[in-house]
Amino acid sequence: MNGKYKALWLDEDDNLVVLDQRVLPFEETTVTITNAQECVEAISNMTIRGAGVIGDVAGFGVYLSAREAKGDMSLLEKLSNTIRESRPTAVNLMWAVDRMMSIAKAYKGDNLVKALKDEAIKICDEDCMRSEQIAIYGADIIEDIISKNSLKKFNILTHCNAGWLAIIDSGTALAPIYEAHKRGIDIHVWVDETRPRNQGANLTAWELSKAGVPHTVIADNTGGHLMQHGMVDMVITGADRVARNGDSANKIGTYLKALSAKDNNIPFYIALPASTFDFDILDGLKDIPIEIRSESEVKFIRGIDNSGEIKEIQIVPTSSGAINYGFDVTPARLITALITERGVCRADTEAISQMFSDLL
Amino acid sequence: MNGKYKALWLDEDDNLVVLDQRVLPFEETTVTITNAQECVEAISNMTIRGAGVIGDVAGFGVYLSAREAKGDMSLLEKLSNTIRESRPTAVNLMWAVDRMMSIAKAYKGDNLVKALKDEAIKICDEDCMRSEQIAIYGADIIEDIISKNSLKKFNILTHCNAGWLAIIDSGTALAPIYEAHKRGIDIHVWVDETRPRNQGANLTAWELSKAGVPHTVIADNTGGHLMQHGMVDMVITGADRVARNGDSANKIGTYLKALSAKDNNIPFYIALPASTFDFDILDGLKDIPIEIRSESEVKFIRGIDNSGEIKEIQIVPTSSGAINYGFDVTPARLITALITERGVCRADTEAISQMFSDLL
Repeated sequence: MNGKYKALWLDEDDNLVVLDQRVLPFEETTVTITNAQECVEAISNMTIRGAGVIGDVAGFGVYLSAREAKGDMSLLEKLSNTIRESRPTAVNLMWAVDRMMSIAKAYKGDNLVKALKDEAIKICDEDCMRSEQIAIYGADIIEDIISKNSLKKFNILTHCNAGWLAIIDSGTALAPIYEAHKRGIDIHVWVDETRPRNQGANLTAWELSKAGVPHTVIADNTGGHLMQHGMVDMVITGADRVARNGDSANKIGTYLKALSAKDNNIPFYIALPASTFDFDILDGLKDIPIEIRSESEVKFIRGIDNSGEIKEIQIVPTSSGAINYGFDVTPARLITALITERGVCRADTEAISQMFSDLL
Repeated sequence: MNGKYKALWLDEDDNLVVLDQRVLPFEETTVTITNAQECVEAISNMTIRGAGVIGDVAGFGVYLSAREAKGDMSLLEKLSNTIRESRPTAVNLMWAVDRMMSIAKAYKGDNLVKALKDEAIKICDEDCMRSEQIAIYGADIIEDIISKNSLKKFNILTHCNAGWLAIIDSGTALAPIYEAHKRGIDIHVWVDETRPRNQGANLTAWELSKAGVPHTVIADNTGGHLMQHGMVDMVITGADRVARNGDSANKIGTYLKALSAKDNNIPFYIALPASTFDFDILDGLKDIPIEIRSESEVKFIRGIDNSGEIKEIQIVPTSSGAINYGFDVTPARLITALITERGVCRADTEAISQMFSDLL
């Protein structure tokens, strides 16, 4: 699978190579992951991030754990548990580790490592197919809004990064944007900077530049004003975990954009693969756990100086503390619909339970 | 008036000295303003900012213009017009210049420069009195909310900086906070970072640290989550221009926090002196002009490196454009009430017209 996906691949020694998302867009470098510990680090220090890619990397992490455990099942379980716990909010992480471990536990043959490698690749291939389906369903919605409102140009706002750096191989929220662009629609993307880690300004802007999709970076504070003044035709984001009732956890600040979309009668969509659902959580607002990350992500910021070198500077006075909630939950009532690989689904328990009844 | 106010004062040569708010909190340095051109620069490049202080500096700017014009009234008018146009959204700017020029035009004595200096000082003294009144009315509201909800601790969220760096000599939004702190209330402030210029993380956090008021800096994306989870008891911000109908222009992003406050049934107050009203604008959302500032404020950010030196780094890829709306308008329907030096006023045309009938 060398080079098969854009965000991650296996090298000739069957180690996992990932694009280092911490230094994008300023440097394009890779990190090689050879064992469970390196996998845990890559996930927790956000070398890679994004619901899907976290799951993919975790999948390969279990394969690498098996290689490391050399047939010791209890060590494999221990290692895979460390991976499972490397980030608290992303449901794909738990989902991927559990799927890999159920393969491992049921395995009867003589090459568990190879079987787990194949399963991890299968997870990736399935993600790619899902991403393609989401692209089509989402682009159809875009065409529908354009035709209903006789728009010449389509302005879409997105928060954080849910492109191919997050879900291989074209993303969730960005997949319909790429597809619309391919269909020749005159699309322009408002890219929320997405503080504190700036995944919008760094990753989404970079992805869109690479694909030649017109876009403009804005401070996270700006979306409301744009929506008040008719400059946004649709909002689309990804999700990190979606509850049975449609409540959706996504990057902190998503809820504020959803409120504004509602207040201005602008359609607000969440794009996600089925693996992002957590069907065990019935009430997302109440029960989805929210990761609190280091205050240093608020107090320090990374960029390049005028010689192009990556630098980190402090932007909050030393005397002040900061708190860093990674996600918020957008209540289902603010979500026009969920765009999934199975089609467009109303964000409520009934519709979700019906469309995904086989997964419950 | 040397040292009379915290944010600005006259030096021994009667030039205006201001704290350079561009380098706070990392350096405490001053800029000396000796003429109209330097005044225009200080306002437009945001050496100083904040509704009240812009008006104060503009007032002194007209005095300095008169000193420069040496009795040439048409030059004075020309110079004061350049000051009047140095920022588009701040109504105090126009208000202060107009007030100073009406004094100038009506003046019959032989020391216009002195008369204008006195008037500029009078504007400052009036601001101080207003700030004190706002402090009292606002702290009374805080005490009221505490007693109604039997709170032990009071969490208040603010956006941008409306402290004494914005309105001498204790601010508008921060004035009630300082007053509550003085009254012994256990108050804690959530400080919105306030991208793209970070006035919250830089100025509000610095002011609160100096005053020993407990506070935590948060990304602008975070307020919604805090409000959903009962961690905010009240939101208070300043304003840059408030229309006759109560619609309030304030730093970009204020609208999003107001939406969230409404959605979570949290009181949302705007604190302002009467000079911030623009009674000629009947519909704020429709008619308050919104300043578009340089994209470089989004693409570059200032802070200190690990040797404590101030550095500017680039945080958006060169290949991506950015747009930088400075303000948004919070519709009156989302505002619990306006806290003014005359008392607490409902945010609607009727109540505003009644309380400020003498100014219409």
